[in-house]
Amino acid sequence: MTDALMNTTILSRIRKPGDVKALSWAELEILAQELRDVIIGQVAGHGGHLAPSLGVIELTLALFRAFDLEEDRLIWDVGHQAYAHKLLTGRVEQFHTLRQRGGLSGFPRLGENPYDHFGVGHSSTSISAALGMAVARDLKGLDHEVIAVIGDGSLTAGLAFEGLNQAGDLGRKMVVVLNDNEMSISKNVGALSRFLSRKMTTPFLQRLKSDVEDLLGTIPKIGDDLAGYAKRYGDSVKSFFTPGILFEAFHFTYVGPIDGHNTAQMVKVFEEVCQIDKPVLVHVLTTKGKGYEPAESDPTHFHGVGEFVPETGLARKFTGFGLPSYTSVFGSTLCDLAGRDKTIVAITAAMPEGTGTECFRKNYPERFVDVGICEQHAVTFAAGLATQGYKPAVAIYSTFLQRAYDQIVHDVCLQNLNVNFFLDRGGLVGEDGATHHGAFDFSYLRHVPNLVVMAPKDEAEMARMMVTAFAHDGPCAMRYPRGTGVGAAVSPDPQPIPLGRGELMRDGTHAVVITLGSRVYPAVEAAMQLEDEGLEVAVFNARFVKPLPREQLLDLAARFETILLVEENALAGGFASAVIELLTDEGALAGKRIKRIGIPDEFVEHGTQKELRAMLGIDAEGMKQTLRLLCSP
Amino acid sequence: MTDALMNTTILSRIRKPGDVKALSWAELEILAQELRDVIIGQVAGHGGHLAPSLGVIELTLALFRAFDLEEDRLIWDVGHQAYAHKLLTGRVEQFHTLRQRGGLSGFPRLGENPYDHFGVGHSSTSISAALGMAVARDLKGLDHEVIAVIGDGSLTAGLAFEGLNQAGDLGRKMVVVLNDNEMSISKNVGALSRFLSRKMTTPFLQRLKSDVEDLLGTIPKIGDDLAGYAKRYGDSVKSFFTPGILFEAFHFTYVGPIDGHNTAQMVKVFEEVCQIDKPVLVHVLTTKGKGYEPAESDPTHFHGVGEFVPETGLARKFTGFGLPSYTSVFGSTLCDLAGRDKTIVAITAAMPEGTGTECFRKNYPERFVDVGICEQHAVTFAAGLATQGYKPAVAIYSTFLQRAYDQIVHDVCLQNLNVNFFLDRGGLVGEDGATHHGAFDFSYLRHVPNLVVMAPKDEAEMARMMVTAFAHDGPCAMRYPRGTGVGAAVSPDPQPIPLGRGELMRDGTHAVVITLGSRVYPAVEAAMQLEDEGLEVAVFNARFVKPLPREQLLDLAARFETILLVEENALAGGFASAVIELLTDEGALAGKRIKRIGIPDEFVEHGTQKELRAMLGIDAEGMKQTLRLLCSP
Repeated sequence: MTDALMNTTILSRIRKPGDVKALSWAELEILAQELRDVIIGQVAGHGGHLAPSLGVIELTLALFRAFDLEEDRLIWDVGHQAYAHKLLTGRVEQFHTLRQRGGLSGFPRLGENPYDHFGVGHSSTSISAALGMAVARDLKGLDHEVIAVIGDGSLTAGLAFEGLNQAGDLGRKMVVVLNDNEMSISKNVGALSRFLSRKMTTPFLQRLKSDVEDLLGTIPKIGDDLAGYAKRYGDSVKSFFTPGILFEAFHFTYVGPIDGHNTAQMVKVFEEVCQIDKPVLVHVLTTKGKGYEPAESDPTHFHGVGEFVPETGLARKFTGFGLPSYTSVFGSTLCDLAGRDKTIVAITAAMPEGTGTECFRKNYPERFVDVGICEQHAVTFAAGLATQGYKPAVAIYSTFLQRAYDQIVHDVCLQNLNVNFFLDRGGLVGEDGATHHGAFDFSYLRHVPNLVVMAPKDEAEMARMMVTAFAHDGPCAMRYPRGTGVGAAVSPDPQPIPLGRGELMRDGTHAVVITLGSRVYPAVEAAMQLEDEGLEVAVFNARFVKPLPREQLLDLAARFETILLVEENALAGGFASAVIELLTDEGALAGKRIKRIGIPDEFVEHGTQKELRAMLGIDAEGMKQTLRLLCSP
Repeated sequence: MTDALMNTTILSRIRKPGDVKALSWAELEILAQELRDVIIGQVAGHGGHLAPSLGVIELTLALFRAFDLEEDRLIWDVGHQAYAHKLLTGRVEQFHTLRQRGGLSGFPRLGENPYDHFGVGHSSTSISAALGMAVARDLKGLDHEVIAVIGDGSLTAGLAFEGLNQAGDLGRKMVVVLNDNEMSISKNVGALSRFLSRKMTTPFLQRLKSDVEDLLGTIPKIGDDLAGYAKRYGDSVKSFFTPGILFEAFHFTYVGPIDGHNTAQMVKVFEEVCQIDKPVLVHVLTTKGKGYEPAESDPTHFHGVGEFVPETGLARKFTGFGLPSYTSVFGSTLCDLAGRDKTIVAITAAMPEGTGTECFRKNYPERFVDVGICEQHAVTFAAGLATQGYKPAVAIYSTFLQRAYDQIVHDVCLQNLNVNFFLDRGGLVGEDGATHHGAFDFSYLRHVPNLVVMAPKDEAEMARMMVTAFAHDGPCAMRYPRGTGVGAAVSPDPQPIPLGRGELMRDGTHAVVITLGSRVYPAVEAAMQLEDEGLEVAVFNARFVKPLPREQLLDLAARFETILLVEENALAGGFASAVIELLTDEGALAGKRIKRIGIPDEFVEHGTQKELRAMLGIDAEGMKQTLRLLCSP
C-alpha cells in the first residue's frame, strides 16, 4: 500500500483501539477488507503468519468494538494471529517492518505497544496470564475486563488446562474466547478436538430427545441400587455432550458456538458477556485463512509462509539455490532408517510438516504419532515406548522442547532410555525472534546425566548422527539449524560416529577454532581467507557437546596457544563452557590465549539469520576479525 | 517385624505377584493388616511416605489379584503410594533398607525390580507412560493389559490431561485407575476436584429427574432457533454432571465410583474392565492414611513423615538441636515482608506446608494462591500478576520447578518481569533420592538472560536475599537446602545485598575456596581445621551465581594461585563453571591450580544428606582432603 493510498483508507484513520467504536457496520466491513489486503500484501512480500491472522479479522474488530482496550486487558494466545491487532493499535506505519531487524515483532510483545499486555510466541499461556491479571485487578479493586483469546489447538496443551481448571475454581470475572478453527498448524488431534466439533444440530437434538426420555424412564427411586445405575447413566448421558458441557464442568459459563465472521453478532455476545461476573467461555467458529482463497484451501501451508505472489498464492522462487532444508533431509533420512529398523517410532507435537515427518506419516502411519501441542506428553509417552524396546524419535523444535525439560531429565535420562531427540531450529531462527530462537539447548541439555548431545556440520553428518543416536543404547539429542544445508550428499548407508569423536577439518599453526554444528563451515571459510594474510588457522569440528572429544581436545590444547571457541548457543553453560570446564579440570589452560564467541547473556531479537549471526560476530567475517585480534602479537 | 515373626505371616509367603491370587478373601484381609503393620513400623522407624501407601493397600491387593503382573504393566503415578507394591513383589527382606543408602528406593524404579515398569517421583506421568506402553504392545501384536494408577491430585497437572486427551483419541485398550482421596499432599484445589466430589446420591437424582423433565419440555423442534437453545441447554444440562461425564467426553469408558477399601468389589470391576477393548477409567474412592488413626486424622502431616512413635503417631524428638528449618525461616520471613509490602503475592503448587507458606495463607489469604500440582501455570500466572505491578513469590522445590523451565524463560525472563522464585530443596535432598535432588538448578537457571540466581549461606543471608529479590526490578531465583539452618539470627529489618556482591568469610595465603549457599560454612570449617596444619586458606562466599561478583573474583584470582571451587550442584554448567567462564574470558586463569568439586555428571541415588555430601567429597572433610592435595607442592 502506498502512502497516498494509505491516507484514503479507514485503516489510516484508526490510531487507537477506541477509533474502531466510532465506525458504522458498513465501515467495519470495509475495514475488514483493508486489513486483509494489508496483511496479505505484507506477508506476500516478506513472509509471516498469514492464515491465523486472516481467520480472526472479524473477531479482532468485534473485540475492539465491544471492549474498552484503554482499560481492558486483551491477551492473544501464541500471537501469530495478532497482525490485525497490531494494525489497529497505532502500528500501521511500522507494519512494513514486521519481523525485520529493528522492526515490529511478529508477535504481541510487552513494551512494543501499550496494548500488548503479554508477550507471546509459545502456545497456551494466555489463560494463566489472564487469570494472573484478573487476580491483580481484584486485589486493586478495579473492574476492567480481562480477555484471553485461545485457539482450539492451543487448548490441547496441559498448561491451558491448568489455567482453565484454576480459573473455574477461583471464579474471577474473565472472558476466554475459544477461537475454534479445528486446526493447530496442522489438523488437530486429541479427544477434545473431536468433542469440540460436536455441534448442536437438528439430528443431534432428535437423538437427544429420545435419550432424555430413556434417561427419565430409568432414573432410580429412593432405595434403588445407585451404584448399578451409574454405568447406565454414563452411557445414556454421553449423547448429551456438547462442547459446553466440558467448560461448564470447569465452572465456566459457556456461550456459543457463534459465527466468528459475523462481527455484529460477536459484538452483541461480548457486550452481554461483560455483564456476567464470573469466568465465561465464548466459543467462536472461524475459518483459518478466511477471505484469501489460497490460504483457506491450504491453511497449513499458509500458517507461516515465505514470500509469495499475492494473486496466485504461489511461492516466489528463491529458495537458496534449490538446496534442501535440514528439516527435509532429517525427514527423508528418518523415513529411510524406519524402513530398516521396525523399532523406530516418530513423534511430533502438532508439527508433522514443520518437522519434516510427513513422509514418515505416509509410509509408516502405525509408527507415527502426532500428540498435539503437548511437548511434555510427547517425551513421557516416548519414555513409555522406550521401556518396551522401541526407539522413539522425538522431533520438536529446540525452543519448544524447553517445555519438556523435566520430562527429559526425570522420565528419559534418569532411566537411561533410548529416546532420541531431534531439535530442529537450534540456534538463531531469524524472523520469529526472541521467543523462537533455539539459543539454550546446549545449556539446558548438557548437564543432564546420560544424555548424548550433538550437532552436525552438514546434511551428511546429520544422517550419520541419526544412525549414531539409534545405535546408542541411551538418550541422544541432536540439534540442527533452520534453513538449507550446504549440499553435502547423504550416504545411502550412513555410518555411525563413535561417541565423543570430533574431526580436524583443517590443520594450522597459529590458532585453532573449536566449534560444531552450523559454525563449522563458516570457521573453515574464515580460516581459508586468513591464509592469504599469512595466518594458519586450524579448525576442529567437535561434533559432540557431550561426551566431549576429550583426548582430541587435550591434544589440541597441548599444540595450540591460541584457541577460539565458537558456538551458536548461549555462551553461559553452552559448548564452549563445556570445553573450558574440561581444559580447566585437566590443567590444560595454562598460558593459553582463549576466547569464546556465541550468543551473549541477553535475549536476541528478530532479524534474518545472516544479520543476527553477523551482529554477534559468529559468521565467517566475525570469526576472521576475532582471529586477527587473537593472533596479533 | 523380627525374622521369626516374618516367617509366620502370609506376607512372608508372597514371593511374586501371582502368589496373591492363591489367597482366600479372609487371608487377603489378614494380608492387608500385615502390610499396614510392616509399613507403619518401617516408616515410624525411618520416615517415609505413609498416608498414601496406607490408602491403597486394598487397591494394590485388588490389582495384584485381578491382573497378571507377569505380563501386564502396572504404573504407579508419583510412586509414594507403592510400598505395598514393593512388599508384594519380592522385596520384603529388603524393605527395612527403604530410602537408605544402597537400599530400596522410596519410589518404583526401573531396574530395581522386574515389576517396576516405570520409574517415578514427580507426579502425573503415568497416563503418558502407560499410553506409550499400550502403543508398543499393539505394535508388537501382544495383548497384555496396561494399568496406570493416578491420584486425583496428580490429575490436576497438565501432563496428565495431555495423556488423557490423547489416550481417549487413540482408543487403545488401557485402564486408568483414578485413586480419589480428595487430596494432593494438602487438600486439592481446582474446578476439577470440586467436580469429582459430585457423587451420585439420592438428592442428586431427584434434582436430575426434574431437570430432565424440563429439558424434555424445551427441546426445540425442526425449524426452531437452535442458537438460542444452546444457552438454555447448557444451564439445564449442568445438573447432569457427574465425574463420569468428563471422562466419557475424553472417550474413556467410565466405571465408578467404587469403594477403594472393598477388595472383592474392586477385583470384580477390574476383571470386567479387562473385557473392554478401549480406554477405561475406574474411579476408586480411598481414604488417605486408611487403617492408622493418626494418619487418617492428619493425612497432610503423614503424607511424608519423619520418625514417630507408632502407638501415638507423635514425632520422635531429634530435630537438629531445635533449629528451625530453612523452609520455616523462609515462610516466616515471607510473611513478615508481605506485611510491609502489599504487592507481594505467594504462590505454591499444592505444597503450602512443604514450602512453609501456611503462615502467609493464614495472614494474607487474599494474596495467597495454591495452584495445585501445576508448576507451569504457577509461573505463567505469576507473570500475569507481575505485569500488573505485583511481586509474586513462587515457592516451588528445585526439582519440581524443572517442570516450568520454559515458562521461566519465555513468560518471565524474556519479559524481565518481577517474579521471584524460591527454590526449596536445592542440592541433595537425601532419602527421596535421584528423582528429588535439586541438583541442576544453577545449571538450568544461570543461562537464562535477566535472571538473578543466588543461594544463601544461612538463615540471615536468606532473609537478606529475599529482600534483595523483592527490591530488584526483574526476575530473581534463590535456592536453599533441605534441612535446618545454622542458627543465624534473622534481622528484624533485613537489608538488601548489592547484586553480584560476595563476601570474604576469612582470608588466607595458600589457597582460596570459592563457594556459596550450603557449602560456605563447611568450607570455613575445613579452612579452620587446616590452620592447625599450617595451611592458611581463604574462603569466599560468592552469594550470586548470576551476576557473579566479578571484581571480587578477579581480585581473588590475582591474589591466589590455588583455587578450589565448591558447589552442591551439577558441575556441568553450574556455579564453578560460571566462575571459570569468567576467569577464562578475562584471561585470569594463567598459571592457576584450580579444581572444581560438586555433583558429577551422574544421577545421585538416595542416602542421608550427610552420607551423600561425604561421598561426593563436598563436606568439610572432603574439602580438607582436596585442599591438602591442591596445596601440596
